[in-house]
Amino acid sequence: MITPPSPPIVILDRPQMAENIGAVARVMANFGLDQLRLVAPRDGWPQERAWATASGADWVLEGVRVFDTVADAIADLNTVFATTARPRETRQPVRTPREATRVLYDDRASGLQIGLLFGAERAGLETTDIALCQGIVTIPIDPRHQSLNLAQAVAINAYEWRTLVLDAPPPGFREGEPPAPGELQLGMYEHLEKELDAAGFFHPPEKFRSMSQNLRVMLGRAAFTAQEVATFRGVITALSKGRGRVLERLAKEKAAKG
Amino acid sequence: MITPPSPPIVILDRPQMAENIGAVARVMANFGLDQLRLVAPRDGWPQERAWATASGADWVLEGVRVFDTVADAIADLNTVFATTARPRETRQPVRTPREATRVLYDDRASGLQIGLLFGAERAGLETTDIALCQGIVTIPIDPRHQSLNLAQAVAINAYEWRTLVLDAPPPGFREGEPPAPGELQLGMYEHLEKELDAAGFFHPPEKFRSMSQNLRVMLGRAAFTAQEVATFRGVITALSKGRGRVLERLAKEKAAKG
Repeated sequence: MITPPSPPIVILDRPQMAENIGAVARVMANFGLDQLRLVAPRDGWPQERAWATASGADWVLEGVRVFDTVADAIADLNTVFATTARPRETRQPVRTPREATRVLYDDRASGLQIGLLFGAERAGLETTDIALCQGIVTIPIDPRHQSLNLAQAVAINAYEWRTLVLDAPPPGFREGEPPAPGELQLGMYEHLEKELDAAGFFHPPEKFRSMSQNLRVMLGRAAFTAQEVATFRGVITALSKGRGRVLERLAKEKAAKG
Repeated sequence: MITPPSPPIVILDRPQMAENIGAVARVMANFGLDQLRLVAPRDGWPQERAWATASGADWVLEGVRVFDTVADAIADLNTVFATTARPRETRQPVRTPREATRVLYDDRASGLQIGLLFGAERAGLETTDIALCQGIVTIPIDPRHQSLNLAQAVAINAYEWRTLVLDAPPPGFREGEPPAPGELQLGMYEHLEKELDAAGFFHPPEKFRSMSQNLRVMLGRAAFTAQEVATFRGVITALSKGRGRVLERLAKEKAAKG
């Protein structure tokens, strides 16, 4: 098992609402990120309301580091991407969250320190701060509705990180029970066909072949496990014998009454 | 320029907070989704507080349709994935948001109606409702902090949809007939359960729920077409009624001999 590179540090520039800081911490924890830095939070730090919305991701909030400027907050980082709408003109590389995550991942694996910078709720990032970064990440927002919530922006990037990390080690084993071996499946088909035949289902008789074929194909797609084959055979038996049993019981009841 | 397939319908089961419904609408609009259905919203509908958090995504809220049950809400949809943590044990296919999006995209491109089902804030989804879906989507959450905000869960899936649409891959066309709509599938399940119940299959009776659930899941995997649903209902009828018919015939033959 390879240890995946540690996740990017999240930097929030001048966040306004403590509730949003808590929501960011929550979603970082959801996707395995844990280092959060705040640049000049409007209402100071710590703020109780952040804990209320963090939904238990307290360790992220307790580890928060506060800085005066973006420059200070990213001083020890090698690769920082600024998350922002695609600028009208820029000389910096603009990447999707997926592309950016890949670059960050490789940089971190090479021993570099990595981070993701997010702007304030309404104001966004200053171009001077964007210029301090090594590139831009633009979330593919529909231009008809661009107002993306801060925690959502963090969520998308954090999700991409975790997805990449989980993809990294190729999982080599099948989960859950395998489909039943062919022998058991065939036994189930034959059981079904025998009972259907007894019930007069296959008419005219020359259609037996194509009808039974269709049944096998449609049931086969479900890839029953051995246990499920047994369950389905129970269904066949119940349906075909049960009716008789019910008739018997009714007859007995009638006899008892009469 | 190829017109991309229209996006999935989002279904929220028993949402509690109107603020969350608004946040869901907002993030749907961010990523180009616009059809929202609510199943039995706790505080009724419409709710002013939803508009406050939708941040201008009013057209999503104004188009909301309300239903009593999940079954009703997905009755006209062919492929619906339930977004939930990976169940401890399931026989339904479990996909990442990325994998699920690809399937939904191809299905929609083939003319099917597609949807994504999300559970209530705390309670999540009932297993009986999950069983009505064609598969499960599990967001790759860190097991140490699983509490994912509802709007975030929608955001991740909506983001994957938009990312795929922007990549504009040639849709992988689905071959053959589409799966039957939910309504037809449900009718088939209920028919099977009624006949099994009459045959005394569900014993002890308190096992009805789990036993019928298992049957729905294992048959659901086969994704029967409308034609196949009709065929399978014919199988159920033949097995349950046929036995009676055979007994009758035997009785007549005996009488004729005697």
